[in-house]
Amino acid sequence: MAILMDGKALSDQVKAAIQADVLKITETRKPKLAVVLVGDDPASQIYVQSKIKACQQVGIESVAKVFDADITQIELLVALKRLNQDTTVDGILVQLPLPKHLDEQEVMLNISPEKDVDGFHPLNVGRLHLRQATFVPATPKGIIALIKAYNIDLEGKDVLVIGRSNLVGRPIAQLLLNENATVTIAHSRTQDLKQLTKAADVIVAAAGVMHLIQPDTIKAGVVLIDVGIHRDSNGKLTGDVAPSCYEKASYYTPVPKGVGPMTIAMLLKNTMQAYQRQVKQHEV
Amino acid sequence: MAILMDGKALSDQVKAAIQADVLKITETRKPKLAVVLVGDDPASQIYVQSKIKACQQVGIESVAKVFDADITQIELLVALKRLNQDTTVDGILVQLPLPKHLDEQEVMLNISPEKDVDGFHPLNVGRLHLRQATFVPATPKGIIALIKAYNIDLEGKDVLVIGRSNLVGRPIAQLLLNENATVTIAHSRTQDLKQLTKAADVIVAAAGVMHLIQPDTIKAGVVLIDVGIHRDSNGKLTGDVAPSCYEKASYYTPVPKGVGPMTIAMLLKNTMQAYQRQVKQHEV
Repeated sequence: MAILMDGKALSDQVKAAIQADVLKITETRKPKLAVVLVGDDPASQIYVQSKIKACQQVGIESVAKVFDADITQIELLVALKRLNQDTTVDGILVQLPLPKHLDEQEVMLNISPEKDVDGFHPLNVGRLHLRQATFVPATPKGIIALIKAYNIDLEGKDVLVIGRSNLVGRPIAQLLLNENATVTIAHSRTQDLKQLTKAADVIVAAAGVMHLIQPDTIKAGVVLIDVGIHRDSNGKLTGDVAPSCYEKASYYTPVPKGVGPMTIAMLLKNTMQAYQRQVKQHEV
Repeated sequence: MAILMDGKALSDQVKAAIQADVLKITETRKPKLAVVLVGDDPASQIYVQSKIKACQQVGIESVAKVFDADITQIELLVALKRLNQDTTVDGILVQLPLPKHLDEQEVMLNISPEKDVDGFHPLNVGRLHLRQATFVPATPKGIIALIKAYNIDLEGKDVLVIGRSNLVGRPIAQLLLNENATVTIAHSRTQDLKQLTKAADVIVAAAGVMHLIQPDTIKAGVVLIDVGIHRDSNGKLTGDVAPSCYEKASYYTPVPKGVGPMTIAMLLKNTMQAYQRQVKQHEV
């Protein structure tokens, strides 16, 4: 029987643990996350709202800094500088994508690395790849947490990562390498994807292609981690993995309630990490 | 017929082009590389000498800053600070490994990213992984240069990287991904390496195991890139690839005179890049 990896349940556990930790805080101030939103993209608004809501659930303070779509680069950098200097703010994230006239790369570089809870600052990306302590981006971090919660052994396993994005594919490949997996990174230019999916012990599907993974192209007992999120023709949420694959798998993450909820839980965890660091520094 | 990829010849070409560029410089000052050496490890001394010599060959100025093995962390950081501030120094590299009482990670962090011609500063590592302009570490950069010089098409090819070091395995995997290869990273914990080597179109052997790659475990027409360097029982230099593999390959790098000479040529290239950037900044 294939085992469903319940990201919703695990993220609830993680959140409950964070909530308990927040309650134990004896400092005069609580952890605080600042979320920067530029413009009125509906999807970005929903993401920001869900992050703010998750903070409220666990007792982390939050503040949304919302700017008009026509904010200048300088104005945005000034706003970030204020947040960097604000000692009551532990974590800062800028909701992406930004309007096209803004230089995303420069924006990321102007978030204090110590508050960069998304782990997108190049310095933190470098630390991740050098296996140094850093903020691990939330989605890859959530995937590893899920795999560990289900005691899936990655040592020496053939893991296929489909997708090479900065947000998921590349960082998850690094984390899997750190777990001693043999890692293959495939993408849109890969010539024979089926051959690779057939050979893999674990597949992390982050291609952004609905139902890319089909039951005839996987081996029995595979572990299926689905990072995709799409709406099918009936308006139902679904992933990069066709649900008909599940019965062939040993473990799989559903869509929704698989990897998705883990992402927000890990963002909260990173915010706690930023808080603990900042509090410690002020003690010294 | 297998084609030998002549790293010696290509590196000579690269160096000749750099030499010509240096001669064309109209600025009052020439490019300058500072090489920091701590202690008297014989291998490190040889590496430092060969880097200094290569600078001399092309007309790049160089200075070796040699410190006793018992230098303190603070003293070393102060020395680096001076080099960072010295506007006549374009590139700085610290020869690794450092004596064990020194914190290598902190040392790397204290080289100005703009002078970090080895590309080891976490900020530059992050930029590499984010596909931003940076100093690409010399060995992986040299491998890509060799592959391109021989017009080997990587698009969609199955490339196997053996080794996951910060210096070679991880960065070359990123560069190969950027060339649209499908990249597998194997290492000491990989369960069935032979199966992987048999399937690969290109193998980058950076395992540090003499003659790990044998003719019966590769497919005909494979491209063999050998990053290993060992002394065999006769005292002869050899690599991770058994020379008996060559006749089965389409292209291969010999040891010596393959990847090795490319590394130093790319260090010179990075130093020129640092110089051009610094000169440009002072113009503005």
